[in-house]
Amino acid sequence: MERDPTPLALRRDLANALRFLTVDAVEQAKSGHPGAPLGMADIAEVLWRDHLKHNPANPQWPDRDRFVLSNGHGSMLLYALLHLSGYALALDDLKAFRQFASKTAGHPEVGHTPGVETTTGPLGQGLANAVGMALAEKLLAQRYNRPGHNIVDHRSWVFLGDGCLMEGISHEACSLAGVWGLDKLVAFYDDNGISIDGHVDGWFRDDTPGRFRAYGWQVVGPVDGHDATALAAAIAEAKAVRGKPVLIVCRTRIGHGAPSKAGTHDVHGAPLGAGEIAAMRAALNWPHPPFVVPEALRAAWDARAVGDRAESAWRASFAAYRRQYPELAAEFERTQAGGLPESWPEIRGELLAGAAAKSGGIASRKSSQNCLDFLVDRLPELLGGSADLTGSNLTAGRGSVAWHAAGERTPNYLSYGVREFGMSAVMNGVALHGGLIPYGGTFAVFSDYARNAIRMSALMQQRVVHVLTHDSIGLGEDGPTHQPVEHLGSLRLIPGLDVWRPCDELETAVAWAESLQRGDGPSALFLSRQNLDQCGGDPGRAEAIARGGYILREADGPLQAVIIATGSEIGIALAAQRELAAQGVAVRVVSMPCCERFDRQPGAWKRSVLPPEVVRVAIEAAHPDPWRKYVGLAGEVLGIDGFGASAPAADLYRHFGLTAARLTSVVVETIARESASDGDF
Amino acid sequence: MERDPTPLALRRDLANALRFLTVDAVEQAKSGHPGAPLGMADIAEVLWRDHLKHNPANPQWPDRDRFVLSNGHGSMLLYALLHLSGYALALDDLKAFRQFASKTAGHPEVGHTPGVETTTGPLGQGLANAVGMALAEKLLAQRYNRPGHNIVDHRSWVFLGDGCLMEGISHEACSLAGVWGLDKLVAFYDDNGISIDGHVDGWFRDDTPGRFRAYGWQVVGPVDGHDATALAAAIAEAKAVRGKPVLIVCRTRIGHGAPSKAGTHDVHGAPLGAGEIAAMRAALNWPHPPFVVPEALRAAWDARAVGDRAESAWRASFAAYRRQYPELAAEFERTQAGGLPESWPEIRGELLAGAAAKSGGIASRKSSQNCLDFLVDRLPELLGGSADLTGSNLTAGRGSVAWHAAGERTPNYLSYGVREFGMSAVMNGVALHGGLIPYGGTFAVFSDYARNAIRMSALMQQRVVHVLTHDSIGLGEDGPTHQPVEHLGSLRLIPGLDVWRPCDELETAVAWAESLQRGDGPSALFLSRQNLDQCGGDPGRAEAIARGGYILREADGPLQAVIIATGSEIGIALAAQRELAAQGVAVRVVSMPCCERFDRQPGAWKRSVLPPEVVRVAIEAAHPDPWRKYVGLAGEVLGIDGFGASAPAADLYRHFGLTAARLTSVVVETIARESASDGDF
Repeated sequence: MERDPTPLALRRDLANALRFLTVDAVEQAKSGHPGAPLGMADIAEVLWRDHLKHNPANPQWPDRDRFVLSNGHGSMLLYALLHLSGYALALDDLKAFRQFASKTAGHPEVGHTPGVETTTGPLGQGLANAVGMALAEKLLAQRYNRPGHNIVDHRSWVFLGDGCLMEGISHEACSLAGVWGLDKLVAFYDDNGISIDGHVDGWFRDDTPGRFRAYGWQVVGPVDGHDATALAAAIAEAKAVRGKPVLIVCRTRIGHGAPSKAGTHDVHGAPLGAGEIAAMRAALNWPHPPFVVPEALRAAWDARAVGDRAESAWRASFAAYRRQYPELAAEFERTQAGGLPESWPEIRGELLAGAAAKSGGIASRKSSQNCLDFLVDRLPELLGGSADLTGSNLTAGRGSVAWHAAGERTPNYLSYGVREFGMSAVMNGVALHGGLIPYGGTFAVFSDYARNAIRMSALMQQRVVHVLTHDSIGLGEDGPTHQPVEHLGSLRLIPGLDVWRPCDELETAVAWAESLQRGDGPSALFLSRQNLDQCGGDPGRAEAIARGGYILREADGPLQAVIIATGSEIGIALAAQRELAAQGVAVRVVSMPCCERFDRQPGAWKRSVLPPEVVRVAIEAAHPDPWRKYVGLAGEVLGIDGFGASAPAADLYRHFGLTAARLTSVVVETIARESASDGDF
Repeated sequence: MERDPTPLALRRDLANALRFLTVDAVEQAKSGHPGAPLGMADIAEVLWRDHLKHNPANPQWPDRDRFVLSNGHGSMLLYALLHLSGYALALDDLKAFRQFASKTAGHPEVGHTPGVETTTGPLGQGLANAVGMALAEKLLAQRYNRPGHNIVDHRSWVFLGDGCLMEGISHEACSLAGVWGLDKLVAFYDDNGISIDGHVDGWFRDDTPGRFRAYGWQVVGPVDGHDATALAAAIAEAKAVRGKPVLIVCRTRIGHGAPSKAGTHDVHGAPLGAGEIAAMRAALNWPHPPFVVPEALRAAWDARAVGDRAESAWRASFAAYRRQYPELAAEFERTQAGGLPESWPEIRGELLAGAAAKSGGIASRKSSQNCLDFLVDRLPELLGGSADLTGSNLTAGRGSVAWHAAGERTPNYLSYGVREFGMSAVMNGVALHGGLIPYGGTFAVFSDYARNAIRMSALMQQRVVHVLTHDSIGLGEDGPTHQPVEHLGSLRLIPGLDVWRPCDELETAVAWAESLQRGDGPSALFLSRQNLDQCGGDPGRAEAIARGGYILREADGPLQAVIIATGSEIGIALAAQRELAAQGVAVRVVSMPCCERFDRQPGAWKRSVLPPEVVRVAIEAAHPDPWRKYVGLAGEVLGIDGFGASAPAADLYRHFGLTAARLTSVVVETIARESASDGDF
């Protein structure tokens, strides 16, 4: 995408166009962050105008470069770039910065604004997303490119600031990028010495180049981040590096161009004010009114023609590729579009039939592996992994090929190391890139470490499968640090995340199938360490499971109560049902593997499963409070409202009263006081 | 604590005593992690016998060295050390490893086992705790030591493995340790090249010494972690370092001593098996039966006499210090014991009176700062901070002295940088050390980043105050990445954490007072960015607030419904109450600033606030589901069950229907259908 060299004076004006769009929009919104855009405008000008491969008319072009603004608070920089480059982002959109329903949200949001590749703002995660994008590019290039046909060949560029580098996730993601040798990843460090509390010297004294060299990165610079010539040379140097990701250290002044506020943290997150902006217009010789960019500058920014040529050339080369490799091309197009194989209904059917035929005690983590044994061979887009718990999470299927052992084969499995947050944010980047469906495992309790990345997968509606094993006190001896108590309930609160806790292999298989079919968000699978009995494979059960909650075993007589259970507590519920039947008490057992699914069912289904007039008792080896939404105040919940303990699982279940005997007596008591007031404590 | 040089052959046997206690206990439990203890036994022997300053008879001696096993899965190493050194941990306790209610839990638990300084297992956090301990030591030494009186003068030692170093929190904590120049912190890196997925080379290739030098650490080694002479020299070198924390890189073999399994990941987390243990006994010339340690070795391990002498000497020197500096000595003893000043009742009274007198609109984050302005001057033990949001969290009081600007003064405030997880785990270490009460701020949404450290503060029952501002969509334009939705509900699920969401300055002051008085756990304060009206300071209100939920404004007439609200939604609730009164509908407004507190009240209080027979409607700008535990299925909840959006706050409240008008109509509808069935959807 090299163009004729741009005169430096013109470059300055082009960068200043970004600056003034930023300060004018922030001023109009009376809200926003001018500091980073002013500081990085010169870098952005050189990168976007001379190097970024993109087509503003088609933000979905598969072989475009990815650009990530990891310091997402600088959103106006990105919006100005998109607008001037010719994306469908009008001047009126910029004028509506940070207003309700505008395309220019406070932080960049993927799916909301054309050209935004990922939602950023939570610091460090954009960088990790970019690592995931570069990883996806490398894997897809390995899988799909053929001699003379480089249909996957693009870079991932990241802007980041001190905040991103202070966050621990930058360590996890950049260490992995070094291991993976992601040489098409180039990060620009906005080294301005300022963060919100002031001069970073008081809390951030890392030798960042030394740190990144320790990860196996190539470090370029420091260069003057306001010197276009130096930046051009640095980018050229970065593009020539092989086998290593690149960090370009750019020395900048935060708020560069603001005459009195530049270089201070005052410029970070508040409007400059009319006086400062007027002074800045004078100082930078920018006589134009707010939101006005001269036509000549607009023309020099417009990337539509060159972008169209670039994509057209790629389409021609892809057509040649398709002629030579029709099957690969079809698979590439299918996976880029996010579709499952045409034979998916058969694959799903076979998966579920196999699961339904199982008997005996099987840990649901093992059931999950059984599913993966089957699926990995049939879905080349699956990219598995674990945060150093492969043998515990059982996330590797028979067809899994680990990166570090792949040799000439294309890997489809990653040992992410003990990096739960990095893994999850990298998976988000892989999903955002497209062409792959990432899943990754850790212990359920350590979903805490990854929590904001799980949230981000939901906010961005990305198809990521979070495999969370050792899902309760049932893991036993490792004790309370490893035993989830509040995690099921707290993950169920993340909007858009489907949380599955299957009770046997059929429910596990449905959870996998539904998670893969889901195009609009992530799923979390809570899986047991300990063996669970199979609940049978009657026809129709799979369909009922997919509804999230269903009648697993109907009462033998007129219904007196409903027991709701999930996962490993289904066995207890069924035992209690038998005991109650022996006592002449007829109860139904409802399995609720996915509350969110159940909540999305029509009222008729929900009422048929949980008849309004029948009292309910829920049991789950987790915090009881969330179940009040199903049992109300008239019902009862058996759960654990404190931390677990270190002991064999059976001892713990007894200690915490999660037994068929106690459930039986609680059901009897609850039925007895059913007529009592709903609101009593 | 130097002793006569120990012959190397004896050292090997002393280390092997640790090894065999480990493998025998793990074998007996049929569960546990032998790899790290076998690999680090030689290091432990040199450190504990020749350098660690401690008194097994008094694990609470204030000037003891702190020892942290950050790779907490190696718990048997620590239990063996404690047992042999003479702590109140008997051989029978070791034999009950990982059994219910034993003192030897699967992972070390502080408060559960004498001599355990922190609960470890979640990787990386022990290291961060140790940074907090070393920080506390440095701050307390600065505050309390006087020429000739080094009453605070101890080291913090950490064992850690590859897993700890892969975790992002190691970056955050170690970067801070470098900034703070914590030269009494010495970390031993168990560099064995193995993690659970196998040889780390496939996922962890950091140049760790280079990385730590980039943080400003001194790196010693690599040394042979099985060579006592080399280890002794390395420790001597570490102790001589000034101004920098020290990392000693110890090359070890995981499972050292296990003849066939050493050096493989098979030895990490499973019993060796009887055959391997027998072979190990033969190979290491250890003819003793399981759990038998020869008396000569026991005598060489016993640290009670030397520990008693060390503590006695310190007590004598403290007595001299007390004579010369009686007030400082009294303050030291009070803060070490965790008690508040004798004048605390008056301080509290004055704090609350000042808050009750406030009027007008005040953001609760500003109210919190008003409290800190008052408290920081009166409680020298307060150690504040923020994850680079001091000006937003308003966590600095007038008397706060920032580390980086302290000069000769003792700092009581830290800019932690953008390191939420590191900050929270460092705060845990500070609290565990004793003598200080840490509080730290970030945006509420980024509590996600710190979540497992918040959990650990609850599990360890430590007095840490997590200040979480910008607590809802009320923060406005920053948008959904910054707007908590699920965070209130999900933090309320962490057992033992008190979550406060005050509605005005008086509630904020009570929240602060109660959080400081609380000796048995952490608190989280959710505080608004936007202004909130004051609700008046009637006598008795403060006492009611401390109960977590109370009648803020009684109905004007026979009660038809109860509105429950928190924080910024109290204003909406009160407006709806007025509107309903105008319509002839009498409702009570209950403020529920702390659900956990309310849940701990006697039934009579709870029933008096929420009469069982009266229908309830809750409103909170957060996920609605958690409120079902109070409103049941007959009531209603106004909340937000999806993500927020970027816009001015008022627009968002209107968009999400969090208005007095909607609340009014929902209350009317709910009363109307009150007689309907409880269980309908």
